[in-house]
Amino acid sequence: MLIAYLNTLKNKNIFLCSQSKPRRNLLEQLGLQLNIYPSSFEEDLDKSLYKDPKDYVKDTCQGKVNDVLKKFQQENINWDIAIFCDTIIVLNDKIIEKPENEQQAADFLRTFKNNTQYVHTACFVLFNDKQNNKVIERHVIDTCKVIFGDIPEECIIAYSKTDHFKGKCGGYGIQDVGASFIEKIEGQHSTVIGLPVYSLCKILVDNIKELNWQ
Amino acid sequence: MLIAYLNTLKNKNIFLCSQSKPRRNLLEQLGLQLNIYPSSFEEDLDKSLYKDPKDYVKDTCQGKVNDVLKKFQQENINWDIAIFCDTIIVLNDKIIEKPENEQQAADFLRTFKNNTQYVHTACFVLFNDKQNNKVIERHVIDTCKVIFGDIPEECIIAYSKTDHFKGKCGGYGIQDVGASFIEKIEGQHSTVIGLPVYSLCKILVDNIKELNWQ
Repeated sequence: MLIAYLNTLKNKNIFLCSQSKPRRNLLEQLGLQLNIYPSSFEEDLDKSLYKDPKDYVKDTCQGKVNDVLKKFQQENINWDIAIFCDTIIVLNDKIIEKPENEQQAADFLRTFKNNTQYVHTACFVLFNDKQNNKVIERHVIDTCKVIFGDIPEECIIAYSKTDHFKGKCGGYGIQDVGASFIEKIEGQHSTVIGLPVYSLCKILVDNIKELNWQ
Repeated sequence: MLIAYLNTLKNKNIFLCSQSKPRRNLLEQLGLQLNIYPSSFEEDLDKSLYKDPKDYVKDTCQGKVNDVLKKFQQENINWDIAIFCDTIIVLNDKIIEKPENEQQAADFLRTFKNNTQYVHTACFVLFNDKQNNKVIERHVIDTCKVIFGDIPEECIIAYSKTDHFKGKCGGYGIQDVGASFIEKIEGQHSTVIGLPVYSLCKILVDNIKELNWQ
């Protein structure tokens, strides 16, 4: 989708405000050249205050946006596009994020197997409209349904003893060995990786046209 | 899934009988060490003889199996597991394979946009049961539903002028810029890449146990 606009985007300062390697890979595969500028937002909102987990993931992502925008101003950073994401899993009405240790990674997989989970990824895209001296904010909360198959206990134990679970929401990556646990998905597989590529490209193309960027 | 059996598999000669780089990547991400041994089967079966496209993709894959098994014998190759795949797309009851040129790649995308296609991947796995002097054949034909979004004409033109379409069924890869065209899938995303990882792992684990390989 972006391929017709890569020349335009080459002249823009694009910031990915995340330290996730898989997110970076997704964007680089699209042909984007990125600056990496993770937010230092704490990600500690009180889950009990949220009835709808999509509001929780949206507010966490909005927290990252606010944090980085402030720093962009303070540090006088020259930016054109900034991309922010946050990903959570919802299983049996409970929000699941990164496992803290081997034990929790194994427990997660035991609750995932033969079960259906929902991965929600919030993606905010900010455009710096320098001509009109304003910031345009667009966002999407995309959901992918993920259906796990059966996972033998010996595989859960062996998996949790590796590094594969570390730093990943739910402790698995659909883009690596995690694919072997997943019987079926319904949605964008990139949403499970942490950045809904189709939704993001739509936002980028629509707004590049609207801003009349050449 | 395979993670508990990687030590067993390290002592086995595993052959991927395909020259597809994305298929190889999927298997290597699982931790498998592979020998690459593509078949030279012509892939020219008469489509008009098939009512169900799944039979067509199955027979093409079976053709690859027969070709390679004969060569394994002729060349006296020491093998334990051999993996074969074939992928087709079905759109409006028509079988679609690799685009032949830029023009066809663009035409494919024009028929794909705002439309639903079915990707069928046949995967045959052969186990060499040396103890009982027999070959065990297992297979699966997995289907993934792929729903394309709208694609602006300027993006179709720009895309077809790149190398991205070359050598790919339908002329796109869900694992690269092709992801930006796809609004939603239902199934295994690895089936769209050309090798259903979940299904394959299930076959491997079940048969390693049955063969009592250590």
